[in-house]
Amino acid sequence: MTKPRLKIIPLGGLSEIGKNMMVMEYENDIIVIDAGLMFPGAETLGIDLVIPDFSYLLEKQEKIRGIIITHGHEDHVGALPYLLPQLNVPVYSTKLTQGLISVKLKQRRAHSGAELEVVPPGGRITLGKFRIEVFPVCHSIPDSVGLIIYTPVGTIVHSGDFKLDYTPVDGKPTDLSRLAQLGAQGVLLLLSDSTYSELPGYTPSERVVGEALDHIMAEASGRVIVTTFSSLVSRIQQVIDAAVKYQRRVFVVGRSMSDTVRIALELGYLNAPEGILARFDELRGMPRNKIVFVTTGSQGEPTSALVRMANRDHRQLHILSGDTVIISATPIPGNEALVNRTVDNLFKQGAQVFYDRVAQVHVHGHGSQEELKLLLNLVKPRFFMPIHGEFRHLTLHAKLAESVGILKDNIFVLEDGDIFELTPWAGKVTGKVSAGNVYVDGLSVGDIGSVVLRDRKMLSRDGIVMVIIAINRQTGKLVGRPDIVSRGFVDTKESRDMIEESRNLVARTLDHGRDRPADWGFISTKVRDVLHKFYYDQTKRRPMILPFMVKV
Amino acid sequence: MTKPRLKIIPLGGLSEIGKNMMVMEYENDIIVIDAGLMFPGAETLGIDLVIPDFSYLLEKQEKIRGIIITHGHEDHVGALPYLLPQLNVPVYSTKLTQGLISVKLKQRRAHSGAELEVVPPGGRITLGKFRIEVFPVCHSIPDSVGLIIYTPVGTIVHSGDFKLDYTPVDGKPTDLSRLAQLGAQGVLLLLSDSTYSELPGYTPSERVVGEALDHIMAEASGRVIVTTFSSLVSRIQQVIDAAVKYQRRVFVVGRSMSDTVRIALELGYLNAPEGILARFDELRGMPRNKIVFVTTGSQGEPTSALVRMANRDHRQLHILSGDTVIISATPIPGNEALVNRTVDNLFKQGAQVFYDRVAQVHVHGHGSQEELKLLLNLVKPRFFMPIHGEFRHLTLHAKLAESVGILKDNIFVLEDGDIFELTPWAGKVTGKVSAGNVYVDGLSVGDIGSVVLRDRKMLSRDGIVMVIIAINRQTGKLVGRPDIVSRGFVDTKESRDMIEESRNLVARTLDHGRDRPADWGFISTKVRDVLHKFYYDQTKRRPMILPFMVKV
Repeated sequence: MTKPRLKIIPLGGLSEIGKNMMVMEYENDIIVIDAGLMFPGAETLGIDLVIPDFSYLLEKQEKIRGIIITHGHEDHVGALPYLLPQLNVPVYSTKLTQGLISVKLKQRRAHSGAELEVVPPGGRITLGKFRIEVFPVCHSIPDSVGLIIYTPVGTIVHSGDFKLDYTPVDGKPTDLSRLAQLGAQGVLLLLSDSTYSELPGYTPSERVVGEALDHIMAEASGRVIVTTFSSLVSRIQQVIDAAVKYQRRVFVVGRSMSDTVRIALELGYLNAPEGILARFDELRGMPRNKIVFVTTGSQGEPTSALVRMANRDHRQLHILSGDTVIISATPIPGNEALVNRTVDNLFKQGAQVFYDRVAQVHVHGHGSQEELKLLLNLVKPRFFMPIHGEFRHLTLHAKLAESVGILKDNIFVLEDGDIFELTPWAGKVTGKVSAGNVYVDGLSVGDIGSVVLRDRKMLSRDGIVMVIIAINRQTGKLVGRPDIVSRGFVDTKESRDMIEESRNLVARTLDHGRDRPADWGFISTKVRDVLHKFYYDQTKRRPMILPFMVKV
Repeated sequence: MTKPRLKIIPLGGLSEIGKNMMVMEYENDIIVIDAGLMFPGAETLGIDLVIPDFSYLLEKQEKIRGIIITHGHEDHVGALPYLLPQLNVPVYSTKLTQGLISVKLKQRRAHSGAELEVVPPGGRITLGKFRIEVFPVCHSIPDSVGLIIYTPVGTIVHSGDFKLDYTPVDGKPTDLSRLAQLGAQGVLLLLSDSTYSELPGYTPSERVVGEALDHIMAEASGRVIVTTFSSLVSRIQQVIDAAVKYQRRVFVVGRSMSDTVRIALELGYLNAPEGILARFDELRGMPRNKIVFVTTGSQGEPTSALVRMANRDHRQLHILSGDTVIISATPIPGNEALVNRTVDNLFKQGAQVFYDRVAQVHVHGHGSQEELKLLLNLVKPRFFMPIHGEFRHLTLHAKLAESVGILKDNIFVLEDGDIFELTPWAGKVTGKVSAGNVYVDGLSVGDIGSVVLRDRKMLSRDGIVMVIIAINRQTGKLVGRPDIVSRGFVDTKESRDMIEESRNLVARTLDHGRDRPADWGFISTKVRDVLHKFYYDQTKRRPMILPFMVKV
C-alpha cells in the first residue's frame, strides 16, 4: 500500500505571469490558493481576458474545502466571478481583499451566494486536513498575506506576492520574525514569488515614491494630475499626504479609482483628513495650485480619463499649460507604445510630465534577488519551488536558491498543470492535468479556441476576399460573372482593375464546359488556389479567400 | 524684397523614432540627409514596413543635389530602395555605409543606376550652395558620421546618431576637438540626436560588453551562441576577439549576419585572424568548448536561427544541455514578449542564458543626458533643434539645452512636415508639407490607407460575418433563407444554433410583403443593424457584418 501523499498542482501562474491559481490536495481535502486572471497579449486578438482552466476543480468539487486569496490584485482574484457560479465554496481573505472581491462580483453580477470569509493577518483557519495561518507581507496593495500551511506531510510556506519594505506606508512590514521562528522549527517546502528574480539588489521602499511626489508637488505651480493603478492604495495615500502638506484638495476621477478609494476609506485602509477630498462641483473657481487629480490611465488605456485629456477628448477636463502630470506606474509589457503616446500628447498640450524613466515616481511590489535570498535564508526549507513567474524567472530563482545552499535535487521548477507529489522525504512530478488558457471574449467563456484566433490573426494580416459564385441548379454552369468583395486586403478604389481581372479569372476557371452540377468542394478549392496565386503574384499578400456558392 | 532663407524640413524621425529623413533647401538647391525606414508597430496590422512620404522631394526633384547618409542602419538607409527608382540623384556616404546600401539595393532589385559616392570621415563635398564636411561619430555601427554644413545663412552641425565612447572598439571616437574648434568659430544651429534624452548620466562604452563576453566565454564549458544585430560590427569584432583568446572557432549563422560579416571583412571593418572563422562542414567532431556561433534572432524573430533552435525547429542546429546563449541586444519596444518567450524556451532546452536584464551584455549606441549636454557645450550653437526622437524625447532634450544656457526662444521643437525657415538672426515654422507614414505591404507602396488598416483592426478584434441574401429579380422578395458564414467571430460548431437563429432573424426582417424590388442600400443597412444588435446581445462582440445580395 502506498502512503498518501500531498499533491500540489499549479493551475496557473507558473507558465505565464498572471492567472495565479494553485491546488493542494491531501486524501479527501483540497484547498485552492488564489483565482486570478491574466490580460491577453498581442497574439490573442480581440480576447478580453484569460482565466485558468477549472476542469480539474469541477471534477473534484466535492473535495474542495475553500479558496484562500492572498491579496486583491486581478491576477489573484479576477477569475472568481467566473469560478464561483460553478463552484459554491467559501472564499477566505483579509478584509480589504474581501471588499474588493465583493465589488468585482457585483460588477460581473456573479455573486451567487458564495460565502466570503474574513481572516485577519495572523489569523488561522482549518480546512479539512489543512491548518492555515495567514501572515502579513508587504506588496503593492494593503492587506496582502502569505500562507503557512500545516499539512500531514509537513509545514509549507507560500509567500504570496511580496517584497521587504522596512518602511511601508501602512506601517505593516512582512512578518520576518514569524518566518524565522518557523524556519527554526523546520519547514518542508517554500513556495516563493519569482516575478522579479531577474533584478539584482533590493526593491526600493514605497517611501521613495512619497519623497518624489512631495518634491514634485512642492515645485508645481499649477494643477497636479497623478495617475496610478487603482489598487495602489498606499500610493493614493501618499498623494493625499502630499496634498495635505501643500494645501491642495484631491479630486478622484474615474469609476475604478472611485470604487477603490471608497472601499479603502470605509474599511480604514486609506486615511483622508476631513475636507481634503473634493467633489467635482467644487472645481470651478478653485486656484490651480490648490488642485490634485488622482486618476487611472497609467497604462495608456484609450478610454481612460488621462488619455482622453491628453487627446483633448474629455468632456470636462482639459490639460492646461502649466499642469504637472505624474505617471506613477510602469507600463505593463505590451503597453509601452500606448503609454509613450500618452506622454507625448501630454507634453504637446503643454504639461510637465514625470514618468518612470525620468523620475522615481514608481516602485514595484515584488522582492528582488537579495530579498528572495533573505526569505530563503530565514525559512530554511528542505524543498523549494519557485512560483509566480515565467520559466526564466523560475529558473533564475532556482539558481538563487542553489546559491544559498538548497540542494539542487530539492528544487522543483514546475509548469502549469504538473501534478507534484510530496512526502516528508521527497517530491516529484507524477502527471499532468489540463491547465491551458481559457479565453473570455464578451459574454462567452471558453468558446474561443485556436481556430477562431488563427482566423483573426490571418484576417488582421492581409484581410479577406469573398467570392460569390452563382451556379445554375440544373446545368451546374456559372450564371453571370462571379462577384468579389474584399475587406482589409487592398484599397478597393485603387485596385479596382486587379479585382475585375480576378473576377474574370474565376469565371474562366469555372468555365468547365460540362453540363452537370459540379462538385462544390472541387470548385471552392480550385477558386481558392487560383486566387491565392493571382493575388500573391500581384501583391505579395495572402488574404483569406472565402468562396461562396448560390444555386439559382 | 524678402531675403532668401534656409528651409529645413524634417520628413521623418521627429514624430516617431525611425524613418529619419531631412530636407535642407536654399534657393535652387536641396540636399537630403538620410532616407530611413521604420518597422511597424502593433497597430499597423500586416504592414511590412513604413517609409517617409517622398512627395515633397518628387515635386522639387530638379533642385535635389544629393542625398547624404550618416550611417548604415535601416532607419537611415532603408528607404533608399523605394526612393532611388523614383529619384535619380547621387548618394554620399562613408565606405561601410556604401557597402551596406549596395547589398540592400541588390536585395530589393532596386539598383537603378544611382551613383553611390564614398566620402571618408573628415572628407568634404560641395552640393550647390551647401558645403558639407563629414566628421566621425561613435555609434553602434562603424563608419558613422555627423555633418558640418556650411550654408549661406551660417554653419549647421548635424550630429547623426551618436554617443561619446572614449574607448571604442574600432578606435575611432567622436571627433570632439573638431566640434570644439567649430564652436569657437560660431555655429548657427545644432541638430542633435535625442533618442536617449530620457536617460541620465553617460552611456557605457562598448568595451564593457567585451569584458562581459570575455568573462562568460571563459566560464562556459560548452558551446557559446551569441546573438546580436547584424549591423553591430563592433560587437561581432568583440566576439571574435574573445573567441581568439579562448581558442574557439566562430561559425556565422544566417544570411543577414553572413552578408554583413563578409562586407565588413572585405572593406576592413572587421578583423578576423586566419582560421578563426569556420565553415559548417567543419562542425562535426569539433569539441563543444571550441565552438562559438554568431547569429541573428536577438529580437525573437520567429524565422531566425536562434528562435528555431529554441523551439527545436532548426534543421541542423539544436540547443544542447550545457550550451551558453548570450542575447547581446535589447528588445526593441514591441518585441519584449517574443524575446521573453525565446529566453524561456532556451532555458527549457537546458541552456544557460545571459540577456540584458541579468548581465551587461549590451550597450546602446546613443548619447545619454550628460553626453548631450557636453555636445551642446562644445558646439555652443545660437539655435538648437533636437532631432531623432518622439515628442517627449525632443522636449526633454530641449530642456537639457535650456539647462546649459541656450535661450528658450532659440530652441525649436518640430514635428515631421514642418517647414522651418532660418536666417542668421531668427528661425520659425512657416508652413507644413505632407509627411505622413507610407506603408509598404508586400509589393505595394502606399496603397494601404486608413480604411484598410481600420478594417484589419476590426477583423482582428471580433471577426467577420457574411450574409448572402438571394432576392427575386422581379418581385424583390427573398428566395429561400439567407446564408450566413463567419470567420474569427465564434466557434462555428458551438454557436450553430445562434447562427441559425440569426438566419431566421434576417429572413423575418426582409419579409416586407411588398411586391416590388427593394432598395439594396435600405436592405443592407437594415440587415447590418439587426444583426449587430442580435450578436452583441448574444455575445457582447461586434463582428464586421457584410451583407451581400444575389438577384435570381
